[in-house]
Amino acid sequence: MNDATSTVEALKTLVQDFVAERAWEPFHDAKNLSASIAIEAAELMEHFQWVRSDELGSIQDDHEAMHEIREELADITAFVLSFASTMKIDLSSSLAEKMKKNAIKYPVERYRGRFK
Amino acid sequence: MNDATSTVEALKTLVQDFVAERAWEPFHDAKNLSASIAIEAAELMEHFQWVRSDELGSIQDDHEAMHEIREELADITAFVLSFASTMKIDLSSSLAEKMKKNAIKYPVERYRGRFK
Amino acid sequence: MNDATSTVEALKTLVQDFVAERAWEPFHDAKNLSASIAIEAAELMEHFQWVRSDELGSIQDDHEAMHEIREELADITAFVLSFASTMKIDLSSSLAEKMKKNAIKYPVERYRGRFK
Amino acid sequence: MNDATSTVEALKTLVQDFVAERAWEPFHDAKNLSASIAIEAAELMEHFQWVRSDELGSIQDDHEAMHEIREELADITAFVLSFASTMKIDLSSSLAEKMKKNAIKYPVERYRGRFK
Repeated sequence: MNDATSTVEALKTLVQDFVAERAWEPFHDAKNLSASIAIEAAELMEHFQWVRSDELGSIQDDHEAMHEIREELADITAFVLSFASTMKIDLSSSLAEKMKKNAIKYPVERYRGRFK
Repeated sequence: MNDATSTVEALKTLVQDFVAERAWEPFHDAKNLSASIAIEAAELMEHFQWVRSDELGSIQDDHEAMHEIREELADITAFVLSFASTMKIDLSSSLAEKMKKNAIKYPVERYRGRFK
Repeated sequence: MNDATSTVEALKTLVQDFVAERAWEPFHDAKNLSASIAIEAAELMEHFQWVRSDELGSIQDDHEAMHEIREELADITAFVLSFASTMKIDLSSSLAEKMKKNAIKYPVERYRGRFK
Repeated sequence: MNDATSTVEALKTLVQDFVAERAWEPFHDAKNLSASIAIEAAELMEHFQWVRSDELGSIQDDHEAMHEIREELADITAFVLSFASTMKIDLSSSLAEKMKKNAIKYPVERYRGRFK
């Protein structure tokens, strides 16, 4: 699987099959999954907890760190996909709709190079 | 866009174009993006903060709540995709690899219906 | 030390001495400490990640779990205190002021037994 | 109230009285409170979301930002205290115990000026 060819649906199926095989649906409710996304996000943050903004460049050359970072990002993604499946949310259309809203909230001419 | 036809790459491009148009790449470093994922995950959690596990069923019938929940999930997804782009991570292969590892860690016969 | 006799200042001093002995002040900036509070909060959440609301009662009888929970709460507290010291915030007066504001926002007669 | 004279117990009482007056004990279970700490921690993080490490100095001069930051820190503290009360945890002794453990884990001569 790779990002160029995998649909979001294919990723959803991968995660839902895993959950279904273990009969974990009762645990994967919206409350638990939202906490699970936050827990995994915190584990990703840990990799940058004490790193100054100007020291971030070197991390991409650290193969071991990058392997762990990929795993944490995969964990977040798995729970995002399971949340979407559980709540019957189409992630792609939700994202497209929200980015349109963001484009109105943050007009290019006003926010170019600045976030406030 | 919808999950059945959108590739992950297409979603990545949607987010990266938005960031590039605003020249926000300097803000979108790995440290800031990992915090941003956690911040949006917390906003998703807020919808379930005081809801008991046995009261979750009714949320899917609440159209206003579901609209907000979809938006929060979209925000998380946008930052996950931006993080992946910034760190040159292929999300699909990272997920596939991690789910294989999870399948070994949580064998079906041992974990069926239980998480520990 | 115990809650009945320890002042907040005494707890602040305990943490600041630890930080100063290791010359960790440059790491303990507001950005890193806010992320650190969130990271430790997530580790506390992990203990309840898959536990249903109606199953929580038994945790207080689990001595090993309670030991770990006390440690996670201590970690959160240490970073809250370090954040307060770094930003020259008096925690007690900030809390008293916020609770007054909350009392106006959530009048007893309106919110008794309900959170919205 | 101020940190020099307030005991932790006094802060706990302030929060518990607020909760009891509203009969909110059923909402303030350990699962909900751990999520609440994480939610408020994320709101604190938001103030530093896009700020580079080398730009943090100016925030202490921003009175409006500092007011909001004090409020977020108070919110975190309120939920930490409520969690401690709910779970019958003495925060001061838990912190003292954990800092002793940290002192063994991070000996001064090895970790002076470095976090790994």
